[in-house]
Amino acid sequence: MEVTQVLHMNGGTGETSYASNSLVQQKAICLTRVTREEAMSRLYRSMRPKRLAIADLGCSSGPNALLVMSEAIKLVEKLCRELKQESPEYEIYLNDLPGNDFNNIFKSLESFKERLRNEIEDEHGMGSCFFNGVPGSFYGRIFPNKTLHFVHSSYSLMWLSKVPEGVENNKGNIYMSSTSPSNVLKAYYEQYQKDFSLFLKCRGEEMVEGGRMVLTILGRRSHDRSSKECCYIWELLARALNHMVSEGMIKEEQMEGFNIPQYTPSPSEVELEVEKEGSFSITAMEVSVVPWNAYDDSEYGNLSESLRNGGYNVAKCMRAVAEPLLISHFGEAIVEEVFHRYQQILTETMSEEKNHFVNVTISLIRKERSA
Amino acid sequence: MEVTQVLHMNGGTGETSYASNSLVQQKAICLTRVTREEAMSRLYRSMRPKRLAIADLGCSSGPNALLVMSEAIKLVEKLCRELKQESPEYEIYLNDLPGNDFNNIFKSLESFKERLRNEIEDEHGMGSCFFNGVPGSFYGRIFPNKTLHFVHSSYSLMWLSKVPEGVENNKGNIYMSSTSPSNVLKAYYEQYQKDFSLFLKCRGEEMVEGGRMVLTILGRRSHDRSSKECCYIWELLARALNHMVSEGMIKEEQMEGFNIPQYTPSPSEVELEVEKEGSFSITAMEVSVVPWNAYDDSEYGNLSESLRNGGYNVAKCMRAVAEPLLISHFGEAIVEEVFHRYQQILTETMSEEKNHFVNVTISLIRKERSA
Repeated sequence: MEVTQVLHMNGGTGETSYASNSLVQQKAICLTRVTREEAMSRLYRSMRPKRLAIADLGCSSGPNALLVMSEAIKLVEKLCRELKQESPEYEIYLNDLPGNDFNNIFKSLESFKERLRNEIEDEHGMGSCFFNGVPGSFYGRIFPNKTLHFVHSSYSLMWLSKVPEGVENNKGNIYMSSTSPSNVLKAYYEQYQKDFSLFLKCRGEEMVEGGRMVLTILGRRSHDRSSKECCYIWELLARALNHMVSEGMIKEEQMEGFNIPQYTPSPSEVELEVEKEGSFSITAMEVSVVPWNAYDDSEYGNLSESLRNGGYNVAKCMRAVAEPLLISHFGEAIVEEVFHRYQQILTETMSEEKNHFVNVTISLIRKERSA
Repeated sequence: MEVTQVLHMNGGTGETSYASNSLVQQKAICLTRVTREEAMSRLYRSMRPKRLAIADLGCSSGPNALLVMSEAIKLVEKLCRELKQESPEYEIYLNDLPGNDFNNIFKSLESFKERLRNEIEDEHGMGSCFFNGVPGSFYGRIFPNKTLHFVHSSYSLMWLSKVPEGVENNKGNIYMSSTSPSNVLKAYYEQYQKDFSLFLKCRGEEMVEGGRMVLTILGRRSHDRSSKECCYIWELLARALNHMVSEGMIKEEQMEGFNIPQYTPSPSEVELEVEKEGSFSITAMEVSVVPWNAYDDSEYGNLSESLRNGGYNVAKCMRAVAEPLLISHFGEAIVEEVFHRYQQILTETMSEEKNHFVNVTISLIRKERSA
């Protein structure tokens, strides 16, 4: 599987689209707002650039793609008033892999800008915004040298550039799990180290000195790489697939060749790579959680029957994320059945225990370059 | 009709897509190659920027979208060898209206870059290329101040930002024609002046001093605005629509409300606006022609039966361009029939006379800004 060709969230705006099923990711963005605002505020106060270049890496499509940009622009406009500074020109870069539904974002831009202008507009007006779509893998260079001031990425960096090599003996599993042989855990970790380090190196080249970066990565708190808090969600999907293997609907060899190209690091694993790579200093770090069922909160009072069904919600959320990977490996025919079974398993599990996604958020500053 | 919302070439890669039906536009690009190379060569020799920002405005999707970029990069790489200069970083900006199929271009980028690298790669390597999609109307600002070195646009600037106001009495026509009242011709011309002048002003702000721009506009040689050489292709489409009105398949009021948002200027009309607006000087100008049926050339030896049918080719070419406009105004139901009839009319006409599209190409340089 060529991950950069295959991986993308479900496009469009339909029933199974990422645009309609990304509340978990939205919640993670909201939870980390203070960290982002702190970083942007310090950046703007110290630099006050005439052109402010902001990139969102792994923007996907749907409402989340522009959420962070809207928040950043509003904050900078407020700072401009406060500092009696003219608004900058905003260069907005929305990056994702080439399979992402950029058309969908682009079509929503006019109304987004209109709304933003209405929300901000006062006697000062607001800086011009120039939007760019940037297709390509962030495990490689996607911007020119020293051009970016602020980089954001949320729920993207847990995706690896490829399935690690040497995980053929991860039988019955599709991700790291408590039953994975130790070489599998090691292979996943090494791929993560390689990828994240390359990510930091590339951004280090692309960002200006003093530029800031806030990354939220789906991760774990535990030292144990196969901890339930990061692996269980995939274990239950493996369970659905294994049932279908035992019923002859999926071939065993096919199941054995399927592994999710993801790694969910702990805060200290993130920290270690940043220190080793050397382009950035860490200014803040935090861990937050979002319930598997993002509607599982008092704030959603009157939910429809289906939305009150946690298994239904979580299965839809995971489908919007993982369907292209499954289709690419198993073909389209089995997908409906897989997610039907996954939903049942999730509903059962969630009636017995409450599980959370764990987010590791890190705020970084680009160090001065040595001469 | 909100032109910026509606206008786009047919997306995808299917039978009626622009990607599969844009040979006319490709020929126009090939015919104007020398003018572009001359401009780029002078630009690069005089500036030798470390970062070279090139924009294609109205790039559409399909093979033409990247043709000019590939040619530009190859030329600059050749110049770098010759001048013993390090390759620049290429910032490539592909612009079109938000309805354009950017996904389609983005998915083809990896193989494009691969091919380009293979064609160029020698012991010097080649400069990094950073691709951006830029959604938005070029009758407005789409780039930050003073950032672009080279701007190209082919077969896009004849599209107006909107249907001119006050053309309600253009009965039985859908474009300027010999039977159009004089106020209609005047309204079209005034809209062109306003739009093209705004285009020049915006690019003037976005381009660096000494930056160069090569524009190819579908136009005419004649002074007569309703000349057959620019209007006949639409007159024949109007004929198809009028037949359907007389047969009750289209309502007369609907037909009367439909006008193509296009203006096909003469070389002197282009020149006049450039001089009036003042940001640019003209360095070269040329007129070229492409036969309506782009396959109508000795170079295509063994054509299939259908491709030898000129009416079929021209109808498909025009459908890829005009279908979204027709669907937005008349609805989807009539489209198949319209183009069926259009093809018949074209076949008949083309058996009797040979017609050409006329291209006006202009090469411009951004003047020094007054202090």
